[in-house]
Amino acid sequence: MAKRKSYFLKRPKSTKALHQAPGTVTYVGRKEQAETLLEVIDYNNESFESFTSKSPEDAFKFEEESKTTWINIDGLSNTAEIEKVGKYYELHPLIIEDIVNTNQRPKIDEYKDYYFIVAKMLYYKEDGRLENEHISIVLGKNYVLTFQEAGGDVFDGVRDRLKNAKGRIRSRGADYLVFALLDAIVDNYFVVVEEMSDKIEALEEQLFNSQPNDDTTYEIQELKRTMLRIRRAVFPLREVVSRMEKLNSGLIQEQTINYIRDLYDHMIQVSENIEIYREMTWGLMDMYMTTISNKMNEVMKVLTIMASIFIPLTFLAGIYGMNFEYMPELKWKYSYPILLGAMFLILLGMLYYFKRKRWL
Amino acid sequence: MAKRKSYFLKRPKSTKALHQAPGTVTYVGRKEQAETLLEVIDYNNESFESFTSKSPEDAFKFEEESKTTWINIDGLSNTAEIEKVGKYYELHPLIIEDIVNTNQRPKIDEYKDYYFIVAKMLYYKEDGRLENEHISIVLGKNYVLTFQEAGGDVFDGVRDRLKNAKGRIRSRGADYLVFALLDAIVDNYFVVVEEMSDKIEALEEQLFNSQPNDDTTYEIQELKRTMLRIRRAVFPLREVVSRMEKLNSGLIQEQTINYIRDLYDHMIQVSENIEIYREMTWGLMDMYMTTISNKMNEVMKVLTIMASIFIPLTFLAGIYGMNFEYMPELKWKYSYPILLGAMFLILLGMLYYFKRKRWL
Amino acid sequence: MAKRKSYFLKRPKSTKALHQAPGTVTYVGRKEQAETLLEVIDYNNESFESFTSKSPEDAFKFEEESKTTWINIDGLSNTAEIEKVGKYYELHPLIIEDIVNTNQRPKIDEYKDYYFIVAKMLYYKEDGRLENEHISIVLGKNYVLTFQEAGGDVFDGVRDRLKNAKGRIRSRGADYLVFALLDAIVDNYFVVVEEMSDKIEALEEQLFNSQPNDDTTYEIQELKRTMLRIRRAVFPLREVVSRMEKLNSGLIQEQTINYIRDLYDHMIQVSENIEIYREMTWGLMDMYMTTISNKMNEVMKVLTIMASIFIPLTFLAGIYGMNFEYMPELKWKYSYPILLGAMFLILLGMLYYFKRKRWL
Amino acid sequence: MAKRKSYFLKRPKSTKALHQAPGTVTYVGRKEQAETLLEVIDYNNESFESFTSKSPEDAFKFEEESKTTWINIDGLSNTAEIEKVGKYYELHPLIIEDIVNTNQRPKIDEYKDYYFIVAKMLYYKEDGRLENEHISIVLGKNYVLTFQEAGGDVFDGVRDRLKNAKGRIRSRGADYLVFALLDAIVDNYFVVVEEMSDKIEALEEQLFNSQPNDDTTYEIQELKRTMLRIRRAVFPLREVVSRMEKLNSGLIQEQTINYIRDLYDHMIQVSENIEIYREMTWGLMDMYMTTISNKMNEVMKVLTIMASIFIPLTFLAGIYGMNFEYMPELKWKYSYPILLGAMFLILLGMLYYFKRKRWL
Amino acid sequence: MAKRKSYFLKRPKSTKALHQAPGTVTYVGRKEQAETLLEVIDYNNESFESFTSKSPEDAFKFEEESKTTWINIDGLSNTAEIEKVGKYYELHPLIIEDIVNTNQRPKIDEYKDYYFIVAKMLYYKEDGRLENEHISIVLGKNYVLTFQEAGGDVFDGVRDRLKNAKGRIRSRGADYLVFALLDAIVDNYFVVVEEMSDKIEALEEQLFNSQPNDDTTYEIQELKRTMLRIRRAVFPLREVVSRMEKLNSGLIQEQTINYIRDLYDHMIQVSENIEIYREMTWGLMDMYMTTISNKMNEVMKVLTIMASIFIPLTFLAGIYGMNFEYMPELKWKYSYPILLGAMFLILLGMLYYFKRKRWL
Repeated sequence: MAKRKSYFLKRPKSTKALHQAPGTVTYVGRKEQAETLLEVIDYNNESFESFTSKSPEDAFKFEEESKTTWINIDGLSNTAEIEKVGKYYELHPLIIEDIVNTNQRPKIDEYKDYYFIVAKMLYYKEDGRLENEHISIVLGKNYVLTFQEAGGDVFDGVRDRLKNAKGRIRSRGADYLVFALLDAIVDNYFVVVEEMSDKIEALEEQLFNSQPNDDTTYEIQELKRTMLRIRRAVFPLREVVSRMEKLNSGLIQEQTINYIRDLYDHMIQVSENIEIYREMTWGLMDMYMTTISNKMNEVMKVLTIMASIFIPLTFLAGIYGMNFEYMPELKWKYSYPILLGAMFLILLGMLYYFKRKRWL
Repeated sequence: MAKRKSYFLKRPKSTKALHQAPGTVTYVGRKEQAETLLEVIDYNNESFESFTSKSPEDAFKFEEESKTTWINIDGLSNTAEIEKVGKYYELHPLIIEDIVNTNQRPKIDEYKDYYFIVAKMLYYKEDGRLENEHISIVLGKNYVLTFQEAGGDVFDGVRDRLKNAKGRIRSRGADYLVFALLDAIVDNYFVVVEEMSDKIEALEEQLFNSQPNDDTTYEIQELKRTMLRIRRAVFPLREVVSRMEKLNSGLIQEQTINYIRDLYDHMIQVSENIEIYREMTWGLMDMYMTTISNKMNEVMKVLTIMASIFIPLTFLAGIYGMNFEYMPELKWKYSYPILLGAMFLILLGMLYYFKRKRWL
Repeated sequence: MAKRKSYFLKRPKSTKALHQAPGTVTYVGRKEQAETLLEVIDYNNESFESFTSKSPEDAFKFEEESKTTWINIDGLSNTAEIEKVGKYYELHPLIIEDIVNTNQRPKIDEYKDYYFIVAKMLYYKEDGRLENEHISIVLGKNYVLTFQEAGGDVFDGVRDRLKNAKGRIRSRGADYLVFALLDAIVDNYFVVVEEMSDKIEALEEQLFNSQPNDDTTYEIQELKRTMLRIRRAVFPLREVVSRMEKLNSGLIQEQTINYIRDLYDHMIQVSENIEIYREMTWGLMDMYMTTISNKMNEVMKVLTIMASIFIPLTFLAGIYGMNFEYMPELKWKYSYPILLGAMFLILLGMLYYFKRKRWL
Repeated sequence: MAKRKSYFLKRPKSTKALHQAPGTVTYVGRKEQAETLLEVIDYNNESFESFTSKSPEDAFKFEEESKTTWINIDGLSNTAEIEKVGKYYELHPLIIEDIVNTNQRPKIDEYKDYYFIVAKMLYYKEDGRLENEHISIVLGKNYVLTFQEAGGDVFDGVRDRLKNAKGRIRSRGADYLVFALLDAIVDNYFVVVEEMSDKIEALEEQLFNSQPNDDTTYEIQELKRTMLRIRRAVFPLREVVSRMEKLNSGLIQEQTINYIRDLYDHMIQVSENIEIYREMTWGLMDMYMTTISNKMNEVMKVLTIMASIFIPLTFLAGIYGMNFEYMPELKWKYSYPILLGAMFLILLGMLYYFKRKRWL
Repeated sequence: MAKRKSYFLKRPKSTKALHQAPGTVTYVGRKEQAETLLEVIDYNNESFESFTSKSPEDAFKFEEESKTTWINIDGLSNTAEIEKVGKYYELHPLIIEDIVNTNQRPKIDEYKDYYFIVAKMLYYKEDGRLENEHISIVLGKNYVLTFQEAGGDVFDGVRDRLKNAKGRIRSRGADYLVFALLDAIVDNYFVVVEEMSDKIEALEEQLFNSQPNDDTTYEIQELKRTMLRIRRAVFPLREVVSRMEKLNSGLIQEQTINYIRDLYDHMIQVSENIEIYREMTWGLMDMYMTTISNKMNEVMKVLTIMASIFIPLTFLAGIYGMNFEYMPELKWKYSYPILLGAMFLILLGMLYYFKRKRWL
């Protein structure tokens, strides 16, 4: 019983930051304890430098024109640090609010000197629940700021390629870095959606073997809910990428556009997969209903067969259990075996009837 | 029984104002008794003045250019007073009609010297029913008029920030005040939608524990109806905010546009939440159906098992209750214990059969 | 039985006018017997004149520039008269065809000197069926022609305001009159939709008290059909009003546009109501299904409880009704009361079991 | 059983023309045997000439500027003849392919000197199945070519009006003739859709009287399929007519545009009817489900009432059928009538209980 | 049981290529073993040359202006070869990535000197599963490159027409060849969709004869899934063809546009068929539900009839099986035959009752 309750863990209220003045910087996420940690990566085609720090002041010295600086900030609960970074890079107050507002949906805002992008990273927690993490990206002239709730591993591939100068990433600018980061996020969506499809198949197999347990309907409802959450993270990002493709600005170079278009193709693909699995999930409920009905049909058949055979026979036995004085059959010598034989024939007839009706 | 009837309280007819000349000022709301009360707040960066009055004449003296005046009128049933205010500020007759027509949906009308905005405030009454309140806002050069059916508390946060000069609100003009008021309304939507989601979860838990009561289907239908009402209040406001963002006019300053865009993001977010909870609500009905079917399956299984076991045994007992003279078994010494043994074996066989079918 | 048949009264075929040359003037409505009656109202700010006539010739003398003439024609079956009026005002042949073609959907056609508007008036007949009446309006420079199937009362409010010079109506021109007429029609939609909602609530209450009768499913289907008819009358008119708002022409004055925009708001509102009641109607069918299933569950429980208790007890009685010679219990003195006691304990056990399963 | 099979007559494969070079002229329809027959009608305001011929050469002499020539070709299986006509009038090879490709959906193609229009004629065959016939129309400067699979009667009204100079048709040009032909096709759609509605009503009545037979679900599925076929024929034609209205070209005269707009109104009307009947058809399935459930409820009630009354009574009889030696009641004089009385009271109690539950 | 498991064969993960640098060339398809094979066809109106080779170098010598060269590459797993070809024709790195990424959805990318088109070929494998094959087409000035996962036969018709100079294909350029290849792919869709419809009909027939087996619900779910896959392959290609029609570029000649428009018509047609069969498939689930319910109804009727007839008769027999000493009827001479007669009358009454209820 304890296990079943877990479907209804109270979700954290997203209304924490309400009834406050707009522009107030309040962290509404779930990872209060996380320490703010800055990771600075400074690179160009020839050089690569990287270090981490707990004090944002260290990060501020990187401003060389010829190099691209990527500052990744983990942990959003220390809003004072976030505001300090924000002020140094002259970010608009509303942006800082959005960075720590983990309920903010994916979007792109264009400011004069930089773009502000919000995305959602999806992953399954150990208890099988889908979690989403709030990611904010600021793309400036030769720097990129990324803000995460907690240190994840989805950007590790990018870090690795930067360090080992794999692919084109070191020779391109900040815009390509942003593309690479978004690409890493989107690649991860495929993994998440694929796991979704495994769950659907597991449920289908369960229903197929007619072994739905009591939780099946809740698992399907939970699947639907998860699907809706994935859509909510993925679909707005599609518009973000589409808009990036069309931006006319010095911040995104001509040669990066092709890659962004490719990223858009991937977004469409993952969206299509989501829609397909969504329809499959809705189909599961229908399958469940027919499975239940088929089982009830089977139960009813057993009852009907048993009752139809033995109720008439019991009636016959009842007839000759009556105590009338004048029942001539009772005195005949072969009455008993004849009746038994007749009962046997009735039994056979019934079985044949049910066989022909394909109930047996 | 009395409690259940409460679902069908006759709603007030919204057709009260029909069959009248257009422009006729008729109050169609439910709060006839409410007295009209004016609250005047006059402020700029340095000063703050506030008082309430029952006579609208007092409010008319505030017209200084350098200050912003907010006049909040509570109670719409005294239409004569409303018309007086309307005439003083040269409002179009149709606006005055819309202010008291509480059925008017959210909209924005642009007039030469002011904007007229209609919004809906949502809150739950003590009996759990969702109530919506009609709010009209007139945004002029350096004044804001707000009209409410009854004094609510959703604007209290704004009043408080004005009084205590919290945030930017005192240093901005009338347009920022309107933004702050709409922001307060929208923040409240999140609370309302969140309570909705609690109700959905409570019903899911009820269904999960297979304890749906007789009212479950009506509660689900009621949830759907409430959802539709929320959508009806929220969705048109989204368009209103989107249009405010695009207005080119001296009434809304450049720097306020960013905040309105942020407000629009919140509107999208609350709309998405509504859609998700809506799908969840529809899923509830499916869950209910499968719950009923599962319970019927269980009932049928009990019947089938009982009948399948005891009907054949009763038949056997019936056989040896017959009164034929020539039934040799009746005379045998061990007939009775042998028959009892056979019956016990049949019982075991049946139990094994049902066990294997997983009905037990 | 006679009453139930009434759902399937043969509807009049709408195909009467087919297979004819386009432009042929054929009346396809149901009110063949209605006599054509002309009502002429001639007014301006100072004067008001009104009379009725059966001969259209009388109506033709009103043509003063400074006055607005409203000619209302009741009864469309006398197509010769209709054509005569049409020719006098130089209406296009297709317009005359549309005036008598009561199947024509709402639309607006712009001609050089006049607009042609088709609308539908909705009302409930005494037998509870929704009826729609075909209304055609021609808006010219200083005249308005309206054509109705039969004299209704929806325009009476307008007549009254004209006569008593209530509101602005006498001081405005023909365009404002058309607005006022459409406004009267739309106001009536609210009444019709509200009655719809009463029917939905009545059905909900019926289902809630678990007293659906045999006709419930047909009443729901009938509700759906009615809903579709209302939409069909209302939705195209919304487009008509929207287009009127955008027309740039001397026929509609600047100051009337505000009123038409207001009318459009009402159209949106009534459309939203329709959609909400529509969803409610669809929900009714689900409620009906669960009501049926719940009732079947209850029936099954009674059967299962009765059978589960008495079938085993009957078996026990059957055992001691057997006629074996060697059944020692039959001779014991307290066998009978002991058996009765055992049966009573089994009964109690069963009741406790069903109680715990919450079937009782 | 033979009759029921008729739902699954193998449909002719529409894939006959695949795997061929584009532009290959292959007839894919079902009327292989039909002979190609040409009917030539040549007319203007004063004169009218008409004859039929089996050789297309005869048709070619009509080319007077002042006259309109309508050549109607029945029978598409003789592709050589079709190609000959096509070449004479310099039709594009793809047009000729489309003329004989009866799977081609309605469309309009604009070529330099002519328009090519494809439409579908719908009619019910004797066995109640909906058949559609492929109609191709070529509208040139002063000629119209029409191609049909077999001689139908839908154009007879047009022929008649041409012959007897009814209406405006003789005084207008080729564009008006095309309008008249399309109008005849669309008028016929109303008839087809109306018959559809009769079928829906017949099924509703059947369900209402609770007499659904075994085929009901297949008839509903067949209705849905037919509905989809009608939509497929009608909806693309709507776009065709809409595009005709907007064409700027010498081929369609100003004065005909009004008629085409009227035709478009009719298309919208028939589309709306289709949508309404479609929703009704979907509702039928729900009605069928509730009808089945209601019937099962009734069956269950009979069973439950019979079993609940007689199983306890049989138990009582069983008690006094036991053979214990010490059963004092057996010896009492009034035991039997008292027991019978008690049984009667139990029966009455049961009946009262079921009456109160409204099961009787 | 083994057979049923086949529904749940683990699908290959499509996530193989994730977590790699963009532009990395990784083959993600299922045909790893396939050898790369090049087939070169070089033709113009007069000449035709064709050979196959395993080394791509052989293909590179064909570059005459006056001739069209078609290089068809079978087998994508040897990515090194693919990259070599790509570099020779100066294809963008992202194109090469898309060629081997078999998850790429249909699209068209316009580059300066060539177009890149992705399409999907559909065919049924021997086990009845739908397979799709990834096809990439590069259309250059006078060459066409096609890339397939394995040698299929869908292009054989085109090869044949080229070889035998059938139709126009030899006299047109590379753009017409691409049209012919796409046309072959689309023609094949009709075959695939037609087979789909056969499966639907087979299931309908199965349900009609009330012989749904245990797998029916899974077959329907599988049908839905297949339908979704077909849509996913077909619908994006529709947009591709639509965009080809609108391209203004030297690569597609004026005269080919007509053919592409025709191809677009076919795409619309196949899409419509898909939608119709899709609705039919959803209808199947409803049909299945009603079939199950009808069968349960039948089962219940048999039970109810048997129980309703014999339970009361058994009760009567039980009455006269009681052992009361004072039961006068037991002594009467004709009690037994009279009781048998009464039982027979009850039986007849019951049969008549069920007959009138149409349960028999």
